[in-house]
Amino acid sequence: MGSSEALEKLHIIDREYRHLERIVAILRWDEETYLPEQGITERAEQLALLEGIAHERLASPETGNLLSELGATQDNPRGDEKLPPLERDFLKVLRRVYDRAVKLPRDFVSEAARAEGLSQAAWVNARRNNDFSAFLPHLKKMIDFSKRRSIYWGYKENPYDGLLDIYEPGMGADAISAVFTPMGKRLSVLLKKIASMPRPDDSFLDQDFNVENQARFSGDLIQRLGFDTRRGRLDVSAHPFTTTLGFDDVRMTTRYLPRQVQSGIFSTIHESGHAFYEMDFPEEIRGSCLAEGASMGIHESQSRLWENVIGRSRVFWEAMFPVLQSYFPDALSRVNTEKFYRAINLVEPSLIRIEADEVSYSLHIILRFSLERDLFSGALDPADLPAAWREKMKELLGIEPETDAQGVLQDVHWSMGYFGYFPSYALGNLYGLEFWEKLKKDIHDVDDLIAGGKFEPIRLWLREKIYTLGRRPEPRDLLKSVTGNNLSAEPFLRYIESKYTGLYGS
Amino acid sequence: MGSSEALEKLHIIDREYRHLERIVAILRWDEETYLPEQGITERAEQLALLEGIAHERLASPETGNLLSELGATQDNPRGDEKLPPLERDFLKVLRRVYDRAVKLPRDFVSEAARAEGLSQAAWVNARRNNDFSAFLPHLKKMIDFSKRRSIYWGYKENPYDGLLDIYEPGMGADAISAVFTPMGKRLSVLLKKIASMPRPDDSFLDQDFNVENQARFSGDLIQRLGFDTRRGRLDVSAHPFTTTLGFDDVRMTTRYLPRQVQSGIFSTIHESGHAFYEMDFPEEIRGSCLAEGASMGIHESQSRLWENVIGRSRVFWEAMFPVLQSYFPDALSRVNTEKFYRAINLVEPSLIRIEADEVSYSLHIILRFSLERDLFSGALDPADLPAAWREKMKELLGIEPETDAQGVLQDVHWSMGYFGYFPSYALGNLYGLEFWEKLKKDIHDVDDLIAGGKFEPIRLWLREKIYTLGRRPEPRDLLKSVTGNNLSAEPFLRYIESKYTGLYGS
Repeated sequence: MGSSEALEKLHIIDREYRHLERIVAILRWDEETYLPEQGITERAEQLALLEGIAHERLASPETGNLLSELGATQDNPRGDEKLPPLERDFLKVLRRVYDRAVKLPRDFVSEAARAEGLSQAAWVNARRNNDFSAFLPHLKKMIDFSKRRSIYWGYKENPYDGLLDIYEPGMGADAISAVFTPMGKRLSVLLKKIASMPRPDDSFLDQDFNVENQARFSGDLIQRLGFDTRRGRLDVSAHPFTTTLGFDDVRMTTRYLPRQVQSGIFSTIHESGHAFYEMDFPEEIRGSCLAEGASMGIHESQSRLWENVIGRSRVFWEAMFPVLQSYFPDALSRVNTEKFYRAINLVEPSLIRIEADEVSYSLHIILRFSLERDLFSGALDPADLPAAWREKMKELLGIEPETDAQGVLQDVHWSMGYFGYFPSYALGNLYGLEFWEKLKKDIHDVDDLIAGGKFEPIRLWLREKIYTLGRRPEPRDLLKSVTGNNLSAEPFLRYIESKYTGLYGS
Repeated sequence: MGSSEALEKLHIIDREYRHLERIVAILRWDEETYLPEQGITERAEQLALLEGIAHERLASPETGNLLSELGATQDNPRGDEKLPPLERDFLKVLRRVYDRAVKLPRDFVSEAARAEGLSQAAWVNARRNNDFSAFLPHLKKMIDFSKRRSIYWGYKENPYDGLLDIYEPGMGADAISAVFTPMGKRLSVLLKKIASMPRPDDSFLDQDFNVENQARFSGDLIQRLGFDTRRGRLDVSAHPFTTTLGFDDVRMTTRYLPRQVQSGIFSTIHESGHAFYEMDFPEEIRGSCLAEGASMGIHESQSRLWENVIGRSRVFWEAMFPVLQSYFPDALSRVNTEKFYRAINLVEPSLIRIEADEVSYSLHIILRFSLERDLFSGALDPADLPAAWREKMKELLGIEPETDAQGVLQDVHWSMGYFGYFPSYALGNLYGLEFWEKLKKDIHDVDDLIAGGKFEPIRLWLREKIYTLGRRPEPRDLLKSVTGNNLSAEPFLRYIESKYTGLYGS
């Protein structure tokens, strides 16, 4: 077989595998949006069958043989040097996906899946009953399965790195630690300073904001941001998310709380950031495994840029507050832009990650990262987690949970074996501000553009620099190529310190 | 392999095949309801892949071997006599589905699919341009492919019977003719009589009926009929349909026209009749190939019973008209139940099938059936179809289309090779009234129940007599077992003649 024939066959396998993954995504999207209550049981069976078929398509010996034939081995995943760079990147990514899939024994996979199901159910009860000890045996199992999974993948010495690598290829615990540790200190200092200042008035947010009007405003907003409704949709679900059902079919969800208008607004903007990324991969990688974000953190950098850096800026609301007012004339008639801007940027140390503001959010992540790292190195016994959690909370945020339900049991992730997942959220903040500093150098009048409601130049810049590469580069290489810099918390800290010093006085 | 082991394996194949078909249905439902405009191209690719995988699962040599092992051959599809009746019915249906799938050569299937695509496109243009001659070569091809398909299935002598058998197992053209021909005469006589009578006033229907209120009324209505929204949904699409995405997930769609409130109402009731059938298959056949309607005509008997016999009855609107009025107090304040009842039962010979009333509808079908039969016997040359169409219209409905667009080109079916499909619509009317006469003997006070808005006894009767058997019996056996009678137009004609003589005077 010639190399072009082998490549063609691999592209067909990849394309079919991707189609099956999209179909899985359609079923999951439907499950979160429109599935009738009792349809859930059979949906799970449909998904299990489909995921099995998708796995068979990808993880066949044929895939392995074709990869080898093209020289794409584990040590040289990009294959034959004579191939065009695009094809070499394709081989690299497919080799990675293939290796991750075939290296886990089938028995291990089903055993782990069963254990995860039980663990998640146990977590639900443990959180409800504030009973960490009932969850502890499951947590231990999840740590053990994750360790074994990582070892199967070849991370015998440092299993936690193997888990981080799922979400941030090539980004190990040491590199993350080196950035997170000093960042935690500086954010703590700022947070404690703000906590001693007068609290801005946000009481006007606690009014009735008609949910149908909220939905209309969100529909208006995404059009203004540039979301193409011929190629995507916005629906409602309990937890907002974005999913790609096809290259011309990107679906976002949000949710509307009657007495928290800001919740739906910022979920909508956040998901739009994800959607722009997914909608703008270039023609040459459409429908292939390269048409994905470079990493979870890079993806998150896009949603957080739009939600926070753009969406929570003063200039953004100079353009948008009059529009919002027109949807809620009664509730907002006596509020001005500045007052609204201060209310949506309220900073307050709090116990729950998903309710955290921009200053404290990364601290919640740093806490989880340091605990995960210690759990996997053996420095921390899972039984000691609740105490370690409280201690870290005190150190970083200056507050302590009264119950484990509000502490170590608050997130679902660990109960499903998702270790190594949290850091990407904070890395998203760092990547995002590194990109943003560069963008501001390239587009001098970006604040004026935003204040005028003109977002297209921003989207085009992000497309050209980031989206167009898809999953070809690893995150640190992408960072380097776009900004010239390595991973750094400086741009993020500069942004946070300048914004909040401005807001809260110096 | 023991027979129980072989059976178990067949049930797994069947179940997986069914899951894949359900997933296909999810993708199609989404395509009709929520898919963004530009997502259509990739959706077609996803569907083609999935349908191919489903076909592979079912039509494997393994399925054939297992069926043979259990004695389920083409001549003895129910297999070994020692097996329980339920399993024998399962084998019969699976053998049928399997045979239909494997007997068509792969090349023939893809060639036919390509030709159908071109034919449908040609039909769209031909109808737009009122140019039958442009469609004629495609129509000839569609007839030819259908003939060959039927011959592959074993209907060498009488290919049209093989096509009818897709939709109505065991019901040949002669049996249908014997019933349709005299029925056509009697309906024609009635229709012509009505056409000479004064036309009831239905002008009040041509007002603005707010579409959101229409949707609210439909939601209210399906709850009153007994539709379980924990196990299904009602959405909106261009053409109303019902589809089963899981045994606890049955989805209906309807559509709302601002100036034709009756359109949405009767679509909703019609689809509810389909949905009740799909929602009430018994536990023992859930998720198997037996969990389907006995035939397309039997399915249609359910939707037409609910839509016409129940939904267009005077007693139904005694219960429902005040409810409808409460949704449209302005538009309906000066209308009473009797006036509404007469307006929604207006009879008028018209050119277009899908706009036809209860009296003329079956005549549109009889016309199509007689033309199809003659096309396949060779008695009618496709080139002569437009003339034959006009002649039959004149004979049956007393009117003639001025253009082919309003005549022979009006339906999409033939352009897709759907011959043998139309008769089931009228058979649904006949089956439905045969069932209804029996139901009225078993439930004496059915009119009082309906007038009181109590539909549960009707649903339970239909469930016990019909739904519970799923696809186990052939339609004529089901008819016999429920009513003691064979196929007959008498109950339908009695119903029509009595209802419309009452409405239009004798």
